[in-house]
Amino acid sequence: PSAVSVSAVLPAGGSGERLGGATPKQFCAVQGRPLVSYAVRAMERVSWISNIIVVVSPENIGTMKTIIEKYGHKRVMVVEGGITRHRSIFNGLKVFAEKEFSSHLLQKPEVVIIHDAVRPFVEEDILSKVVMAAREHGAAGAIRPLVSTVIASAADGCLDHSLERARYRASEMPQAFLFDTIYEAYQQCTDYDLDYGTECLHLALKYCKTNAKLVEGTADLWKVTYKRDLYAVESIIKDNLSQEVCVIINVKESVTQVGFLLPESLKSQIKVEAVSISQSKNDSHLRNIFSGQCYNFVCVNDKKCAIQETQKLVDMLEKSDIPLLYPVVLISVHLDISESNSLSIGMEELTSIKKFARETKKKNILVYGVLIQYK
Amino acid sequence: PSAVSVSAVLPAGGSGERLGGATPKQFCAVQGRPLVSYAVRAMERVSWISNIIVVVSPENIGTMKTIIEKYGHKRVMVVEGGITRHRSIFNGLKVFAEKEFSSHLLQKPEVVIIHDAVRPFVEEDILSKVVMAAREHGAAGAIRPLVSTVIASAADGCLDHSLERARYRASEMPQAFLFDTIYEAYQQCTDYDLDYGTECLHLALKYCKTNAKLVEGTADLWKVTYKRDLYAVESIIKDNLSQEVCVIINVKESVTQVGFLLPESLKSQIKVEAVSISQSKNDSHLRNIFSGQCYNFVCVNDKKCAIQETQKLVDMLEKSDIPLLYPVVLISVHLDISESNSLSIGMEELTSIKKFARETKKKNILVYGVLIQYK
Repeated sequence: PSAVSVSAVLPAGGSGERLGGATPKQFCAVQGRPLVSYAVRAMERVSWISNIIVVVSPENIGTMKTIIEKYGHKRVMVVEGGITRHRSIFNGLKVFAEKEFSSHLLQKPEVVIIHDAVRPFVEEDILSKVVMAAREHGAAGAIRPLVSTVIASAADGCLDHSLERARYRASEMPQAFLFDTIYEAYQQCTDYDLDYGTECLHLALKYCKTNAKLVEGTADLWKVTYKRDLYAVESIIKDNLSQEVCVIINVKESVTQVGFLLPESLKSQIKVEAVSISQSKNDSHLRNIFSGQCYNFVCVNDKKCAIQETQKLVDMLEKSDIPLLYPVVLISVHLDISESNSLSIGMEELTSIKKFARETKKKNILVYGVLIQYK
Repeated sequence: PSAVSVSAVLPAGGSGERLGGATPKQFCAVQGRPLVSYAVRAMERVSWISNIIVVVSPENIGTMKTIIEKYGHKRVMVVEGGITRHRSIFNGLKVFAEKEFSSHLLQKPEVVIIHDAVRPFVEEDILSKVVMAAREHGAAGAIRPLVSTVIASAADGCLDHSLERARYRASEMPQAFLFDTIYEAYQQCTDYDLDYGTECLHLALKYCKTNAKLVEGTADLWKVTYKRDLYAVESIIKDNLSQEVCVIINVKESVTQVGFLLPESLKSQIKVEAVSISQSKNDSHLRNIFSGQCYNFVCVNDKKCAIQETQKLVDMLEKSDIPLLYPVVLISVHLDISESNSLSIGMEELTSIKKFARETKKKNILVYGVLIQYK
């Protein structure tokens, strides 16, 4: 999709009444961070999405702007929503098409992605699939198998008929459209559609005769609707955080046995990415790791230069925006290969790493020092 | 419903392929206890359900019998399932109707509840509602609003049409039927129904012309389908466990100020049930509390008789089957109102409570001792 011009609209104006709480679900904190910020981040890390329009209700514009600043979101514009989902999405689209709507008109994309602020786990793969399918078919949307049988009720509150489950699908997000197609659909649709409809694919079909391509999505695209869904999001995030560790070995060859044994013994527990050459020669490899989903680092250094090397790594982590999303854990191992038995020197070292750790904590990087005397 | 004869069938034969794990979801442990055991417990605590038939695949019969023994489930019979959901439910129903199927024929109920092993949070209220509605209409089932729009796909993988969300509902469990109605439906239905169908309400409609009454259910009736649902179950259980505390004050009136202040200060944090009269006179009140959902107890006693009174409470807890479901926390407060300042006597007391706690832990009752010198 890098050859296509793509932007995204995220309606985030819902009131979340099904959640049973006062805070709309997109602003509920999961691991201390509002749900909408995870969804924005998921879009933002996809380099070929040019602009991300977040549509919120008037009373939440300030909140949303604070979130964008706090978590360093880029390429995001906040737009005031309407009183229904469709009216909010329409407002989001207008930013690309109507001069009077925005202080600076954004470049109209060929394809626009529509996604929900309450679906935090969208991956680049499915975004890419719906965009390419939309380019070909005019519209595309993620679907999932139905979990429950769907039934129609009669006026008396009794069963009228049940649908054959295999013939139907749940329509999920993300969806993507040729911008002109979906914008035309919104311009033509009735007030009834805008007030009572919810399905963009339906508008594209009804007003532009565009039969959307349906793309099988992954299970984690589900929409956070109930309180239990927030619990699930939290557990999934915790799981993801602990899935991978990167071990960086930065010591002389004579002691690289340590560097070999550590990743090997960790491998039975967790996915391990090991980098065993000198860190300075290996910036590009490390950068690749940083662009991935790794939040746990073990850095083994000779005691003599451990603090400096740890500082270098922290600088690199800071430049990447990994710590913006989740806290990064960095275990700094100081390998003492001298013959000296003096523990007091080691204690001094640990005092300075503690001081260092206090500073990095403010940047969401949690540094832990370990001193190993190796003979 | 206590005037109606009611039994329940729980199909638990699914393979759980959507969960992505080797263990079928109904046997996955949540807080150390298999999911199916929560569902059985939810049925079992409803006194007017006579028999609970759990239908499992042949290879899991042993596992299920072990679970029943381990968690002390009562009124439960394990039945071998068929290769599809409908065949399993049919097998479960046969226990009440066909002599050759069971070593001892169970009494045929007027109404049979069908529920899923993977819906652990079913409450007596909704069970009662579907049973009464089934008695009147022949069939009844819990429904929920649709979370996603439902769409029909065409042969080319494109959208054919989307359903108007407000006109349809998700069919959930529990469902209930006049036994003769659903049994007749199963006897008459085709092999195709048995192999590819999943909806009991549909069979009752198709073969017995019975339009089921639809009953609005609560959000927590959802079906555990994906791994994230297991996370949600775990968090909900943890939440439930910490919702209520029962404070039992068992000291002389001169110091009941403690007994008054403690519940008052706890009330801002948690639901508090306070029992302030002497424990021995109050067995029936305590038993009512035990039959509820309380898993946290604070018991304040005069130091002189604290161990004996705590022992009494543990005995009562053990007789109730609360600790079978979750661990019970019991904080035993020993109030020392003597003028003596000797701490060593108190330490002796705490040593014996520690020993006592080791014993009760085996019964899933976690006792913690607190010694307070009160002047």
